[in-house]
Amino acid sequence: MRTNGISKRGREIPESPLRLLISTAQLVEKTGRQVYYLNLGEPDEFPPQSVSLALADFASRKIKYGQSSGEPELISAWQKYYNDFGVNISTDEIIVTTGASEAILFSLAAVADPGDEVLVFEPFYPNYLSIATLLGLKLRSVSLVRSRESFRLPPFENLRQQVTDKTRAIIFDNPSNPSGYVYSREELASLGRLAAENNLALIVDEVYRELVYEGRPTSILQFPEFKGRVIMLDSVSKRYSLCGCRIGCLVSRDQEIMTAVRHMCQSRLSAPVPSQRAAISALAYGQDYIKSYVETFRARREMVTRAFGDLPGAEYIQPTGAFYAFIKIPKLDNSEKFCRWLVSDFAHRNQTVVVAPGTGFYLKPEDGRLEFRLAFVLENDKLNQALTILREGITQYLKQLN
Amino acid sequence: MRTNGISKRGREIPESPLRLLISTAQLVEKTGRQVYYLNLGEPDEFPPQSVSLALADFASRKIKYGQSSGEPELISAWQKYYNDFGVNISTDEIIVTTGASEAILFSLAAVADPGDEVLVFEPFYPNYLSIATLLGLKLRSVSLVRSRESFRLPPFENLRQQVTDKTRAIIFDNPSNPSGYVYSREELASLGRLAAENNLALIVDEVYRELVYEGRPTSILQFPEFKGRVIMLDSVSKRYSLCGCRIGCLVSRDQEIMTAVRHMCQSRLSAPVPSQRAAISALAYGQDYIKSYVETFRARREMVTRAFGDLPGAEYIQPTGAFYAFIKIPKLDNSEKFCRWLVSDFAHRNQTVVVAPGTGFYLKPEDGRLEFRLAFVLENDKLNQALTILREGITQYLKQLN
Repeated sequence: MRTNGISKRGREIPESPLRLLISTAQLVEKTGRQVYYLNLGEPDEFPPQSVSLALADFASRKIKYGQSSGEPELISAWQKYYNDFGVNISTDEIIVTTGASEAILFSLAAVADPGDEVLVFEPFYPNYLSIATLLGLKLRSVSLVRSRESFRLPPFENLRQQVTDKTRAIIFDNPSNPSGYVYSREELASLGRLAAENNLALIVDEVYRELVYEGRPTSILQFPEFKGRVIMLDSVSKRYSLCGCRIGCLVSRDQEIMTAVRHMCQSRLSAPVPSQRAAISALAYGQDYIKSYVETFRARREMVTRAFGDLPGAEYIQPTGAFYAFIKIPKLDNSEKFCRWLVSDFAHRNQTVVVAPGTGFYLKPEDGRLEFRLAFVLENDKLNQALTILREGITQYLKQLN
Repeated sequence: MRTNGISKRGREIPESPLRLLISTAQLVEKTGRQVYYLNLGEPDEFPPQSVSLALADFASRKIKYGQSSGEPELISAWQKYYNDFGVNISTDEIIVTTGASEAILFSLAAVADPGDEVLVFEPFYPNYLSIATLLGLKLRSVSLVRSRESFRLPPFENLRQQVTDKTRAIIFDNPSNPSGYVYSREELASLGRLAAENNLALIVDEVYRELVYEGRPTSILQFPEFKGRVIMLDSVSKRYSLCGCRIGCLVSRDQEIMTAVRHMCQSRLSAPVPSQRAAISALAYGQDYIKSYVETFRARREMVTRAFGDLPGAEYIQPTGAFYAFIKIPKLDNSEKFCRWLVSDFAHRNQTVVVAPGTGFYLKPEDGRLEFRLAFVLENDKLNQALTILREGITQYLKQLN
């Protein structure tokens, strides 16, 4: 029963596990302790140089609404980007969104009504849950199988068991946050089959597309057989270090869904226009940037592997994509307690680190009580230092548990 | 019943009546005809000069996520703005949003669940309906009373009759789009009473606050007796000609609602950061800008009044706020047909105008079949020309109806 002004969904929408410890960390910083932030998935890089020219050039203009579904120049720039990737997308199959976040909101709203269900794979990106809650949707989950060496999708039969007559969509990211997992071609094909057999939308969030460390980047758009069923979500945030711009896009071949999303876009008038100028310039001149960007993160992944591959008490799966490692400490009592302890009670030479507790990446928080996520987004020297501190923190925490 | 992939809300979310005729108008422009756009509510002005300096300065920086609930400098700038206005707001009572649009989305989601109802006053801002549909909410409406001289809120009893046990909120804008109406202090008090008696949130959208042509600007925040019940929405779009930035805010004294909105903000990471820099500079240095801005629109309102105050066949209520006139042509057959005819079939010296049909401002489109909205946003010479063309268009259209 409602007892006061707030809605049920307002009460239920969870706090982000990624931002949980930031205010505590900021207090700790004020005491003079240095804090390394490995909790947020944002690269600590400058964007491509073309971006600063574009923003400076834009600075002296009128700042009117853009077109609701995106500036035509930005749509062309996205088309060219996908074309270089071997995928043809027509102008009416792509819509510019305010970050991939808005693309998640609009795609879920376009395929599911209040009370409907959406399938996710655990551990999942926490904002799938927040946005589903905002829209009155329910998530159902299937856990990825975690072995010592890798993650993988469970057998088809296990997936099928979670589909009910209320399920409307599958949503997942590939490469995946927080697992760093890249789905295999066979796994994607089986998800396509699951979607086809049950009339589900297949919503694939590809914001980390180029960040794959084995083999070449792929896209769900390269599976022509899924055509009408796929909604692909993308963003310039990670690829071009433009997190603060909030520019993404949504691609679908289903014109009925695109019409619905266009009307949703009209409800917020336009995506931010200065940010769209930045995105246009990044997409137009960003190819070399992406190449060196991937090499940067490949080197950082090696640093993380060196730090955790042989750490006693830690189960480390080397990520094959994105810039996250989802580390399991089988003897941990409670990852939230551990992460909070790192920030509040632990220091190594008056320095400490913030990582994200695994509990926020599962529907049942206790399923993530032995895991935490680190984002290897700092520049090399800082990252190295942060990893040393974190290793030391794990060792000390486990020692005091005994 | 669902027969394919799209949701019920996806099918129901309406197309914006404001953007309906733009693609047709663009085709007409290609034939060499000049088109004046009086359909969109965006000022054709440069923003304050401080904005271009701020954007140019920002251009060479890293573009990382901002804080989810808004950059602290922007929150301070908003606080100072309201303080100059006589209203004290503490840091935890204000949240930066991606335009007032997002503030509408978040405030409705925070107070109402799927199936709940929200009360609006007709003619209303069309995106209240779009966003309510996105959230699975239902609008109920009460029509403003339209006399020859002015709009006004109907008697309290009529309002009360539309409140059901599912009603959770009242949402309206003041000054109002499309009517140009400014609610009286007595009317605001009666809405506060209605909200209090029925445990409703009072969501007041004040994006046109300074644009009042009689008396001084007011804010719902100046009514201390409504304190916990009010959610005030605001934006820099109109006030500083920053429509394309998409920066707004939400103010509430109810900490439970603010916690819910903070979690919603986390679900989209942050509002666009370059735009927040622009907004900070506009709020900090924009006072003189607002003064001359109001005088500019006052002069344009006089031009509209001269054009329509005495036009045979037109019922013109001089707007007391915002930059819209909602004109009634009692002999019109169908305002959508009329607006389309203006764009497609009519020309005066090879020029024409786009205005928005009244049908999109009502729950039942036929209730707006005799009205259209014009936004007096063009610079004076162009506006004068556009008004002459529109007068001529009305006269010709009525003639051919006979």
